[in-house]
Amino acid sequence: MTMRHSYDQELEHLRQSLLDMGKAVGGAIEDAVISLARQDLELARRVMDFDDQIDQMEVDIEDKCMVLIARQQPIARDLRIIGTGLKITTDLERMGDHAYDIAKITLSMANQPLIKPLVDIPRMAQMSQRMLKDALEAYTALDIPLAEQVCLNDDEVDHIYHQVFRELLTYMMEDPKTITQATQLIFVARYLERIADHATNIAEWTIYLVTGQRRRKK
Amino acid sequence: MTMRHSYDQELEHLRQSLLDMGKAVGGAIEDAVISLARQDLELARRVMDFDDQIDQMEVDIEDKCMVLIARQQPIARDLRIIGTGLKITTDLERMGDHAYDIAKITLSMANQPLIKPLVDIPRMAQMSQRMLKDALEAYTALDIPLAEQVCLNDDEVDHIYHQVFRELLTYMMEDPKTITQATQLIFVARYLERIADHATNIAEWTIYLVTGQRRRKK
Repeated sequence: MTMRHSYDQELEHLRQSLLDMGKAVGGAIEDAVISLARQDLELARRVMDFDDQIDQMEVDIEDKCMVLIARQQPIARDLRIIGTGLKITTDLERMGDHAYDIAKITLSMANQPLIKPLVDIPRMAQMSQRMLKDALEAYTALDIPLAEQVCLNDDEVDHIYHQVFRELLTYMMEDPKTITQATQLIFVARYLERIADHATNIAEWTIYLVTGQRRRKK
Repeated sequence: MTMRHSYDQELEHLRQSLLDMGKAVGGAIEDAVISLARQDLELARRVMDFDDQIDQMEVDIEDKCMVLIARQQPIARDLRIIGTGLKITTDLERMGDHAYDIAKITLSMANQPLIKPLVDIPRMAQMSQRMLKDALEAYTALDIPLAEQVCLNDDEVDHIYHQVFRELLTYMMEDPKTITQATQLIFVARYLERIADHATNIAEWTIYLVTGQRRRKK
C-alpha cells in the first residue's frame, strides 16, 4: 500500500467521522424538538445525556485532524480538507449544544400546558435538519450547487424565525400569563435559526474547500 | 537565523495576532453595550461596520495557522499551539458577532426610551470583558491559575444572567408595554452570557495547551 493510498484512506475516515457526527447531531435536534412538542421529559433527558457523546465525537475528530497534520505534511487541497474538518466539527458541536438547550427548555416547561400547538417551530426544525443533511452531502460529494442551495434556504429559516418572534410577542401582549413560556419558545426559535446558520457555515466551508474562496460566516 | 528561531518568531507573531484580535473584540463589546446604555445609534453603526474587520482578522489568523502547518511539520506542543490558535480565533469571532448582535438591538430600539436604567447589563459586559482580557493573558503567559480563575468567574456571570432574566420577565408581566424591549434586553443579557462562555473556552484551551488535558467546552 502506498503512503498516498493510506493517506487517502485516512482522509476518507475523517470524512466518515464527520458524517457520523452530523447524523448524531441531526438526531439530537429532531428528538429535542419532539420532546418539546410532546412535552416528553424522558426524551428531553436522553437528548441532554447524549450531548456528552457529541462532544466526544468533536474531540476525536480534532485529534484525528491533529494526527493527520503531524504525520503527513499536507498542502493545498489536503490541508484545506483537514482545516475545514476542524471548522465543521466546531459547527456540528454548537448545533448539538443547541439541541441540548432546547431539551433543557422542555424540562423547564414541565407540567405547563403549551400556550399553543407548535407548528412553525417543528417546521423550522425540519428545515434546519434538512439543511444539515444537504450541507454534509454537499461536503462529501463536493457539490457546489447543493451547497449554494443550503445558503439560499437559510433566508427562509430567518424569515420564519422573525415571524415566530413577532407572533410570540403578540401572545405575550395579549395575555401576560403566557410571558414565561413564550420567552422560552422565542429562545427555541432562535436556537433553530442558529442551527440553520451553522448548516450554512458547513455549506460555505464546502465552497471554500472546492474553490479556495471564502465567504462571510454566520 | 536557525529554522527553529524563525519558527518561534512565527509562533510569537501568531500569538500577537490573537491578542490584537482579542483587543479589537473587547473594544467592540464595550462599545456595543455603551451604544445600548446611551442609545447612541452612531456608535452602534460603527460597531456593526467594524465586525467585517474582526471577521478578516479571523481569516488572516486561520491562513497563518495553515501556512505554519504546511511549511513546518509541527508536533506535540507546537501543534497544540497552532490547533488552539485555530480554536481561539473561532471563539473570538463569535464574541465579535455578539457585539454586532447587541449593536443591532440598539438600532432596533431607536427612539424608545429605556424601560429602566441599565445596571446589571453593563456589569455583565465589564465582567465578560475582564474575563476575555484575563483569558488572553493566561494564554500568553501559560498561566494556569489565571485560566482557572476565568472559569470560576463564569459562574458569577451565569448567576447575574438568570437574575436579569427573571427581573425582565417581571417587568413584562407588570407592564405589557415593556414586552418588546424587555425581550430584546433578555437577548442582550444572553449574548453577554455567551461572550463569557467563549472567554471560558479560551481559558480552557489554555489549560489544554499546557497540560494536554481537555475540559468540556461551552
